[in-house]
Amino acid sequence: MTVEAAPTPHRIFERSDFMVFGLCAVAVGAAAVTRYANVPSVVAFIVAGAAVACLASLVGRSVEQLGDRFGAGATGVLQGALGNLPELFIGFFALKAGLVSVVQSAIIGSILSNILLVLGLAFVAGGLKHGTQTFNSERARTTMVLMVLATGALVLPSLASYVHTPAEPHEKALSIFVAIILLVVFALSLPASLKRSASTASGAGAAAHTEPPRWPIWLAVALLAVASGCAALVSDWFVYALEPAIEALGISQAFAGLVIVAIAGNAIENVIGIKLAWKNQSDYALSVIINSPLQIALVLAPALVLLSLLTATTLTLVFAPMLIMAVAITVIAVAFIVFDGESTWLEGACLVALYAIIGAVFWWG
Amino acid sequence: MTVEAAPTPHRIFERSDFMVFGLCAVAVGAAAVTRYANVPSVVAFIVAGAAVACLASLVGRSVEQLGDRFGAGATGVLQGALGNLPELFIGFFALKAGLVSVVQSAIIGSILSNILLVLGLAFVAGGLKHGTQTFNSERARTTMVLMVLATGALVLPSLASYVHTPAEPHEKALSIFVAIILLVVFALSLPASLKRSASTASGAGAAAHTEPPRWPIWLAVALLAVASGCAALVSDWFVYALEPAIEALGISQAFAGLVIVAIAGNAIENVIGIKLAWKNQSDYALSVIINSPLQIALVLAPALVLLSLLTATTLTLVFAPMLIMAVAITVIAVAFIVFDGESTWLEGACLVALYAIIGAVFWWG
Amino acid sequence: MTVEAAPTPHRIFERSDFMVFGLCAVAVGAAAVTRYANVPSVVAFIVAGAAVACLASLVGRSVEQLGDRFGAGATGVLQGALGNLPELFIGFFALKAGLVSVVQSAIIGSILSNILLVLGLAFVAGGLKHGTQTFNSERARTTMVLMVLATGALVLPSLASYVHTPAEPHEKALSIFVAIILLVVFALSLPASLKRSASTASGAGAAAHTEPPRWPIWLAVALLAVASGCAALVSDWFVYALEPAIEALGISQAFAGLVIVAIAGNAIENVIGIKLAWKNQSDYALSVIINSPLQIALVLAPALVLLSLLTATTLTLVFAPMLIMAVAITVIAVAFIVFDGESTWLEGACLVALYAIIGAVFWWG
Repeated sequence: MTVEAAPTPHRIFERSDFMVFGLCAVAVGAAAVTRYANVPSVVAFIVAGAAVACLASLVGRSVEQLGDRFGAGATGVLQGALGNLPELFIGFFALKAGLVSVVQSAIIGSILSNILLVLGLAFVAGGLKHGTQTFNSERARTTMVLMVLATGALVLPSLASYVHTPAEPHEKALSIFVAIILLVVFALSLPASLKRSASTASGAGAAAHTEPPRWPIWLAVALLAVASGCAALVSDWFVYALEPAIEALGISQAFAGLVIVAIAGNAIENVIGIKLAWKNQSDYALSVIINSPLQIALVLAPALVLLSLLTATTLTLVFAPMLIMAVAITVIAVAFIVFDGESTWLEGACLVALYAIIGAVFWWG
Repeated sequence: MTVEAAPTPHRIFERSDFMVFGLCAVAVGAAAVTRYANVPSVVAFIVAGAAVACLASLVGRSVEQLGDRFGAGATGVLQGALGNLPELFIGFFALKAGLVSVVQSAIIGSILSNILLVLGLAFVAGGLKHGTQTFNSERARTTMVLMVLATGALVLPSLASYVHTPAEPHEKALSIFVAIILLVVFALSLPASLKRSASTASGAGAAAHTEPPRWPIWLAVALLAVASGCAALVSDWFVYALEPAIEALGISQAFAGLVIVAIAGNAIENVIGIKLAWKNQSDYALSVIINSPLQIALVLAPALVLLSLLTATTLTLVFAPMLIMAVAITVIAVAFIVFDGESTWLEGACLVALYAIIGAVFWWG
Repeated sequence: MTVEAAPTPHRIFERSDFMVFGLCAVAVGAAAVTRYANVPSVVAFIVAGAAVACLASLVGRSVEQLGDRFGAGATGVLQGALGNLPELFIGFFALKAGLVSVVQSAIIGSILSNILLVLGLAFVAGGLKHGTQTFNSERARTTMVLMVLATGALVLPSLASYVHTPAEPHEKALSIFVAIILLVVFALSLPASLKRSASTASGAGAAAHTEPPRWPIWLAVALLAVASGCAALVSDWFVYALEPAIEALGISQAFAGLVIVAIAGNAIENVIGIKLAWKNQSDYALSVIINSPLQIALVLAPALVLLSLLTATTLTLVFAPMLIMAVAITVIAVAFIVFDGESTWLEGACLVALYAIIGAVFWWG
């Protein structure tokens, strides 16, 4: 959200802060009303979704202000750890409500919506404005390699289950093992991210990060705590409205998770990525867009598997086969795009088309 | 066919034109005789196949003469739209004859024969003559990226059917949706192809295209109309002889479509691609060879799905699983070869070997 | 083993030779004792495994001394032909003992342990010592392309069997056909390897190969014969101890083949590859590490299929589905890593993590 130049960096709050505070207050208020008033479930669902997106933006802003205190590097790490917080809350409450199918398709859907819909729209926006865009940074290719490896690890328990290996009855143990390994890989990646972010901050595309922190540290922590608390509360309402809304809309649980929950949970990152492409910061845009699904594979999915041990519902990494095939096709295709080093609006249109087709496959309940 | 230097560019017809006219006349005549005379079905089948290939060459030549009128760019677009015309006729008549399995394996077989057999032979020819060949054009990589994305979209309805998603009973609706999306992507790609071809025409490998059109416009249109009409007629005879020939040869429908129909329908493009590699125009050869399967995925397959609505037979995009796996392996392997930017005759031999193995898998009926 | 500088190149034997001779003698002796004495099967198994690894090292050393006679190029070819000799013996005796499942998982396991465990450890070792390492040689990319193609060919009979194509009942004929094709491709690749090795030998990373042969030719041949004979003998003991050891350890046949046999059979190459990465010869390390699985796919697997015709047990190329999926994920992921041209210790850690997860999938019997 701070990609626009700050006009008055010496004040504690700038105009955009007040806008976010106001939006959050209004949205949370509206979500509270629709939660307990007798409104149609679809309305409650949309309002709660909008409130989650607003709070996600406030969490992101607080993390940025807090992170700048310890150097630009820490921002990246904190964003990695906290950026998917709303998705984590939604996933946890959905698990408590027993909506395993929604959670699983939301995990895969978050990956797909990032690297098909958002990357596709970013390519279209950037390509229409600036023609062929190049992104040759080694960083994007390394992120993509990690994404391929993480996806490979993530799909193995599912594959083991489909072909009825002797590991099939142990899918819970296997899922926990994979989850722990993925979290260890994420922990190992933190020092590199720290260093990488720090060096990027002084680089070309990072002018956006150079403004000094405006908020005192206590304020950033307090706002982070408040925003996270509200996000938890509103996520609960969102999930509460989810099931009746699905029924009212007549869509499948898988489609709801794959498309609706995934887009709501990632709304803010998405807008930022497309904006950056539009501004021809294609390297930076790509980096933001493909970093998010990597964190979903390395942190969000494993964390939800481990958190599910606290609920009555068990979440394993055995996904519906169609989800696995969709993510496999997507990751391979996007890996070639990233390795190509160039993007056109036509490639973007193809990515969006692939997203539309995958959505259509899950349309029928 | 105009890759050879034209000795006398001011005459309307050159010697190679007369050769093509003569060949077409003889082949169509022979096909007509074998169609209605009492000859063995295999003979009728081979003669009709040869006539289709000759007419495909005449269609290509007319398109070239016509396209040059509107600039070199239009040639590419017209070739894209009309180059697969014979395959389209064969596919349509085969659908009318209820040979769904042949049509489906011919679609996949056309893709495979282009990027395994023809690309392999081009690599072997070029590699043995010139050693390691390089092809670093961004254009080849972009075409390959589109190919990966189009293949991904093309296989999704099949995958959805295999794993019995709720979309399975809706495979016809899903296929039509995917077909329309693919045709939209093709329509979107036309402006870029136009511009790309135009700029390529002044580039290095395009000296072959610089000769001025020799035929008056009415002649090019007339010949295109005649050639297309004959192609439609002969395609019908080809399909008529197909089924008894399959039985006489004792091969499976899948093998007939995958290997025989696919090679017959693409014979002309194939020879051109291999010739170009032999002349060390490896970039141009690669471009010709991988552009054809892209058009099959983006135009031919969707067009046949929509055309099948006019016939009693329904063609969906739910292919036999082995076809899908063969095309998935092939596209991924060839994508790495294209991204490698270098080819050796050994890589070519491996591509041909992979084609032979895939053929062997389908050998048994 | 000659990567360390030879202190006294004029003597016939240097100190490391005597160490290898001594180790071999001790290990073979110990293996003989444990074979016929009444020791626990696990002990006999470990001792025989160690003896196989020692003999593999002696075979490698003899091949090097012999190959240098005909120029450095021949070394590469001979290593290709003889380097996997111990695996070949183990595979043959395991087939004679009817342990098809062990042999099949050992073939796939040898590929996986090379390009996941060893490449991963090499990346970790090299990355921790030298930071990001680059390997931009065309040779590595070409090897990887051949690996993708060979893997594609290798998995086709399995896929044909899973989806019940009409080729399913002919899996033996199809496997033999694929095996012959793969061996032909290997034979075709020999001239290129010869030339390539020769030119590499005068290149940067090949200083290690420049020492002149120390052993007279008769000695190299004799030692090669003795080492091979012993390797055959000890491989038999290894397999003899394998089955009771599996039972005593309570692990599955698949896990034993995939992890234990695979690591024992490739122990020596593995250590060399990691050592080279540690010395920052990353191009050379990568080349050694990914060349080994290519030879397994092109030579070892087909040779075992043809050799199985001599035994009562039939080995086909129809592997357990989980093995095929593990190798497919691995080869695609590693292909992207090789095409990336850079490695970090984090990528190495991810490769090891993926290996651990695949191992875990096969853990349960």
